[in-house]
Amino acid sequence: MREKLMKMLEERQDEMVAIRRHLHSHPELSFKEDKTAQYILDFYEGKPVKIDREVGNGHGIIITIEGEKPGKTIALRADFDALPIEEETGLPFASKERGVMHACGHDGHTAYLLILADCLIELKSELQGTIKIVHQHAEETPPGGAKSIVESGLLDDVEHIYGIHFFPFKKTGEVAYRSGYAMAGRSYFKLRVQGRGGHGSSPHMANDAIVAASQFVSAIQTVVSRSLNPFDMGVVTIGSFDGKGQFNVIKDHVTLEGDIRYMTNEVADKIDQKIRLIASGIETTFGVTCELDLIRDYPPLYNDEKITEQIREVLEEKGVGDYLTSVTEFDQLSGSEDFAYYLEKIPGCFFYIGAAPKGVENPYFNHHPKFDIDEDALLIAAKSVADAALADLFA
Amino acid sequence: MREKLMKMLEERQDEMVAIRRHLHSHPELSFKEDKTAQYILDFYEGKPVKIDREVGNGHGIIITIEGEKPGKTIALRADFDALPIEEETGLPFASKERGVMHACGHDGHTAYLLILADCLIELKSELQGTIKIVHQHAEETPPGGAKSIVESGLLDDVEHIYGIHFFPFKKTGEVAYRSGYAMAGRSYFKLRVQGRGGHGSSPHMANDAIVAASQFVSAIQTVVSRSLNPFDMGVVTIGSFDGKGQFNVIKDHVTLEGDIRYMTNEVADKIDQKIRLIASGIETTFGVTCELDLIRDYPPLYNDEKITEQIREVLEEKGVGDYLTSVTEFDQLSGSEDFAYYLEKIPGCFFYIGAAPKGVENPYFNHHPKFDIDEDALLIAAKSVADAALADLFA
Amino acid sequence: MREKLMKMLEERQDEMVAIRRHLHSHPELSFKEDKTAQYILDFYEGKPVKIDREVGNGHGIIITIEGEKPGKTIALRADFDALPIEEETGLPFASKERGVMHACGHDGHTAYLLILADCLIELKSELQGTIKIVHQHAEETPPGGAKSIVESGLLDDVEHIYGIHFFPFKKTGEVAYRSGYAMAGRSYFKLRVQGRGGHGSSPHMANDAIVAASQFVSAIQTVVSRSLNPFDMGVVTIGSFDGKGQFNVIKDHVTLEGDIRYMTNEVADKIDQKIRLIASGIETTFGVTCELDLIRDYPPLYNDEKITEQIREVLEEKGVGDYLTSVTEFDQLSGSEDFAYYLEKIPGCFFYIGAAPKGVENPYFNHHPKFDIDEDALLIAAKSVADAALADLFA
Amino acid sequence: MREKLMKMLEERQDEMVAIRRHLHSHPELSFKEDKTAQYILDFYEGKPVKIDREVGNGHGIIITIEGEKPGKTIALRADFDALPIEEETGLPFASKERGVMHACGHDGHTAYLLILADCLIELKSELQGTIKIVHQHAEETPPGGAKSIVESGLLDDVEHIYGIHFFPFKKTGEVAYRSGYAMAGRSYFKLRVQGRGGHGSSPHMANDAIVAASQFVSAIQTVVSRSLNPFDMGVVTIGSFDGKGQFNVIKDHVTLEGDIRYMTNEVADKIDQKIRLIASGIETTFGVTCELDLIRDYPPLYNDEKITEQIREVLEEKGVGDYLTSVTEFDQLSGSEDFAYYLEKIPGCFFYIGAAPKGVENPYFNHHPKFDIDEDALLIAAKSVADAALADLFA
Repeated sequence: MREKLMKMLEERQDEMVAIRRHLHSHPELSFKEDKTAQYILDFYEGKPVKIDREVGNGHGIIITIEGEKPGKTIALRADFDALPIEEETGLPFASKERGVMHACGHDGHTAYLLILADCLIELKSELQGTIKIVHQHAEETPPGGAKSIVESGLLDDVEHIYGIHFFPFKKTGEVAYRSGYAMAGRSYFKLRVQGRGGHGSSPHMANDAIVAASQFVSAIQTVVSRSLNPFDMGVVTIGSFDGKGQFNVIKDHVTLEGDIRYMTNEVADKIDQKIRLIASGIETTFGVTCELDLIRDYPPLYNDEKITEQIREVLEEKGVGDYLTSVTEFDQLSGSEDFAYYLEKIPGCFFYIGAAPKGVENPYFNHHPKFDIDEDALLIAAKSVADAALADLFA
Repeated sequence: MREKLMKMLEERQDEMVAIRRHLHSHPELSFKEDKTAQYILDFYEGKPVKIDREVGNGHGIIITIEGEKPGKTIALRADFDALPIEEETGLPFASKERGVMHACGHDGHTAYLLILADCLIELKSELQGTIKIVHQHAEETPPGGAKSIVESGLLDDVEHIYGIHFFPFKKTGEVAYRSGYAMAGRSYFKLRVQGRGGHGSSPHMANDAIVAASQFVSAIQTVVSRSLNPFDMGVVTIGSFDGKGQFNVIKDHVTLEGDIRYMTNEVADKIDQKIRLIASGIETTFGVTCELDLIRDYPPLYNDEKITEQIREVLEEKGVGDYLTSVTEFDQLSGSEDFAYYLEKIPGCFFYIGAAPKGVENPYFNHHPKFDIDEDALLIAAKSVADAALADLFA
Repeated sequence: MREKLMKMLEERQDEMVAIRRHLHSHPELSFKEDKTAQYILDFYEGKPVKIDREVGNGHGIIITIEGEKPGKTIALRADFDALPIEEETGLPFASKERGVMHACGHDGHTAYLLILADCLIELKSELQGTIKIVHQHAEETPPGGAKSIVESGLLDDVEHIYGIHFFPFKKTGEVAYRSGYAMAGRSYFKLRVQGRGGHGSSPHMANDAIVAASQFVSAIQTVVSRSLNPFDMGVVTIGSFDGKGQFNVIKDHVTLEGDIRYMTNEVADKIDQKIRLIASGIETTFGVTCELDLIRDYPPLYNDEKITEQIREVLEEKGVGDYLTSVTEFDQLSGSEDFAYYLEKIPGCFFYIGAAPKGVENPYFNHHPKFDIDEDALLIAAKSVADAALADLFA
Repeated sequence: MREKLMKMLEERQDEMVAIRRHLHSHPELSFKEDKTAQYILDFYEGKPVKIDREVGNGHGIIITIEGEKPGKTIALRADFDALPIEEETGLPFASKERGVMHACGHDGHTAYLLILADCLIELKSELQGTIKIVHQHAEETPPGGAKSIVESGLLDDVEHIYGIHFFPFKKTGEVAYRSGYAMAGRSYFKLRVQGRGGHGSSPHMANDAIVAASQFVSAIQTVVSRSLNPFDMGVVTIGSFDGKGQFNVIKDHVTLEGDIRYMTNEVADKIDQKIRLIASGIETTFGVTCELDLIRDYPPLYNDEKITEQIREVLEEKGVGDYLTSVTEFDQLSGSEDFAYYLEKIPGCFFYIGAAPKGVENPYFNHHPKFDIDEDALLIAAKSVADAALADLFA
């Protein structure tokens, strides 16, 4: 079956590219992917699969391909939302939506997976086990789509789950993986420091929220420098200090907003706890009121060690020398992915497909207005995920 | 002559009130007092005085009343600009200009001085010496009108200068004075802290301007707490910390704006020097660039001790029991006045006329949308300044 | 009577000098003034006065001189303790006690007052009213002697109290006074910050007391910079940060000690309250335990305004041109005096007698190992206090 | 040859224990190991080896065992100094030196290696290549002995080097390894902050070194929190803040001492640079002088990846099931070792031998007064190092 599948994928490479370009031209923001979802549904129209639509908190779609031979149930996931970025690539198929762009490659994720799914449907009779194709909405914007799809219960019977991401800073033909904790979890927080306003010349009649909030910013540095295990990854960034006011009026309140990153939930718990204590102490020290909202966005992404090893083996064995040039271990990443929610419930692996545009020395990073991928990577992704899936189902 | 003058003032009390109400209804912002200036010029039209118009950097007017007997030259000053405040008094003669209001009593200052000037003109033949009436524009907004009027040279021959302010939190009939340093000087500063932006999860690739600026806010507290003589008055307020941004993006720059108060220029110098050093040190410590603008607005206001004593004496002797109930020493004030510029060049005194609205227990402060004065204070101001002036000229 | 008294004082000037030199040679530390107290008691031995000894918490002595004519009761006070300083004056009558020195002029205070008291005793028959001579121990070391003497009740019938201090930085012949709040009150505080020790390479296993205490030091700056009225005097100094340890061991605790100054008890209350809040907030923010001891030492010294004015008048009228060259108002002082305790209960005045050593351009300050006074100031002090006392008793 | 060697080691197990106990009873501090060095030299006395003594900056000893067959040159190292700790184990062979203790297992390191060396000497005729036995002084105290031994040039011909450490918190029979960066490098720094002393009530006349140093402590937190890659390990601990003084005297200077940890020299460089900049900025901000000494102690310890893998393989193959129960990867450690100096010049591996005392649930850590090791681990160490060495030489 593998040979047939690989051949079918090769034959439909142009179709992958066409789909990717169509989606690229018509990007839609998270939770607003109406046309994209319809496009996907149209694709599966009439095919011998079970279709679940509007899964979770948005346009999530789950396609169930039941193989005719008994076996495990696994899932393959691709996300399909775009970003609020004005495209600057100048590509012929550039975004037609002002201020919206597929700048993270989700167009490609969806394109390769649609074709891979279609091929698998055609090979149903030979398929051993069940494959659930998860077309996920809203990966870019917390709370994301993944969590709600997990909560839908539709993946309760899934034993393993797989996902990939295109990386333009890895060469086409390269695949990279990371076993265990691979991508950071992230939290958002907002702190409103409420003092009492007053005239700049009479500080004793007021309570200066800027002074209190500045000491909070200094104190918060100790979370990472003193409270975490130095071998643990943790970041606390205050990205916004909203304290604009009249130069000669003591500010009555300021609002801080920040971003927290971590590789384990234990570190997240520690950071949460410390931020709460610091805010609470600042209240007493400066006589202000601190209103703290702290929201866990995406958890750290944990790739199952055995499954990751199995992927490494199959890709080295079957991919390298054929459609791949190398399979290498990758650094942990401080970026976050809501694929982590699937992995909290279902063992699996999220790995990276090299997609450096040809002839470009320093490719643009994800989320850049000039972000692009090498479309040859679409077929590579399809084959890699196919190999991973078959190795699992036919193990 | 004094008796005649006092009687004339009493007879024209209604006129003072009418002028004040007219001006109150037609307030104009600093440097934009076109109609007010014209109103004043019209008032003097055809009178036997020298009129200088458009004095200094705005609509300043100087009326020179030459007494027919030889003597000193002194000046009396009233300001005539209003504030960008939406009036909420509900008075029948409330402001007809949206968002503009005489919320600091300059309408009254001008009203009493016009009538006083007119009476003095009528009494020219008896007047010993010369009185320059200074109708000043733009007291409320730095750089103010006073500095430029001094620089015009038109007051170079003035030996002493007098000015007053209505205070609704002193009862009508009370006069207050403060010898020596009486009102604070003030500076404005703006600090732009330029770091390097970056993703919130990668602090090592960026340079966090919020962290650097927060440490500046903390360090700046030591200017007052450690660098000043504890017996000296000094305030450094950072009224604006403009660092709003994306919660997960390290902020590349923030802008702080602040207000500085002091009672002597030596303290101002010390504070300036310290702020410069702190900003410069922050550059090195955090690798940011600090762009500091520091502007001295109005200097501390210094009332000449002999002249203040002379006013106290004459008002106690002639005013108390007659048109005044008390003459008392007042605290130093952290507020500022550009009358201080006159006093840097010309000995003189700026004193306070009680003007608590009748029947109001807690009068509104200056600059409040419900600010009001007791109109009986107009005549009291006229008489007090008349007594001060005559005591000087006929000394 | 005044003329007689003045003459008697002049005749006994050499005796004042001799007593001062004797005391200077035999200084004793606060609360240990055994020989000094005995010397004073010996002086009064057999004289027609009431003698109270061991008054208060040490060697305090009160001599009651009852005039034979009815009148008020007033008190005159001089302190007699010395300092733990090794004298470096090289004077022939320098200290014979190693490491102990009359470096604050209390030898002179006692010398002039003994002779003045003796003269008043001789003039008892002419004296109208009662004079209590307070020879006070332990002014230099909190809790001082004054508070306990007040609490003894022996001064309960005293209507007014007077004291002076020699100032080498005022010329001999000059007297200086300050009405109202004249010298600062002072508090002592000690803060023990208890964290949890640990290895320097494992901050997450410990709780760094040095980091917490350093943030306390920064936060405490805001007490003066933001919580006090800018026109109020206040100082918070942390003079000791005891955190010495191993460079590679996280410090489990540090101890801070500090000094607080203020001119009013309201300011002292505000500072106390703020320090308590800051320490409490630091506990929460950093998870440490803060043990704070805060002790009010000497209160601000408040000179009664009427009595001060009376002294000014009598000294200007009777002293200037005779034994004084000038009587001037003096700045508020950040130094403290336990005479303030008397003034909390009894209206009175503490004023300053110029005593610049002859031929010395920059006299050494009080508490310096080379501190000295001009002995001509002894007679001047005696006469000044005599005039103040008589003006009061015979008013 | 391997079988013979293993058997010989087994036969001499009691001797290893006896040597270890002798050394344990007679510990000597770093750089003062006179008797220990002599003991080692006596051991080799008369044996057919080259002996270099007093190597490097102390009592270093290098024994060269030339195999009679040609081959590589490798080195095996054991350290022999003890710690300034008062032993509390109560063992029959406890330290006889007051306040000195082998609390880090160097007694055991030396014991196993002496016997292993002796066995190898006996097997010289079969030995292929040369083995240098490095008995190193002064591992515990910077600058340590290793650096100077490397600089002696006596190891210039060594191709690979091996060392081990006993770990009581791993069970006897377990071996642990870490490829790449395995133990932290460390730096020491001392910062003298020089301000200007003065009276606590007059901050404007002084320059408060405690305030400046406290802000340094706060600013230094940003080195780890903002300047390092969140995935990099780095620690900056200020273990000593020596600022004890009089509570009411502004401190003229304070001295801070600190400890820095890192896993790569790049991180060390970054931290060094940041600390220098922060100190320099503090000078400007607070007008103090900062004198900074920053000394790199031991570099990060880097285990060669190929050699580590080779050890893992040979120990799993030959040890596990025989004298070992497991060979596992270990976490990176924040502790430091001067073995790192050898590894900067010579590829090699430093690995860990489990040595949990029998029957103890929570063994005491290295450097604890009750630290102990299971003596069965001596033979295991000898066999493990023997296997590593033979695998290398006979590869």
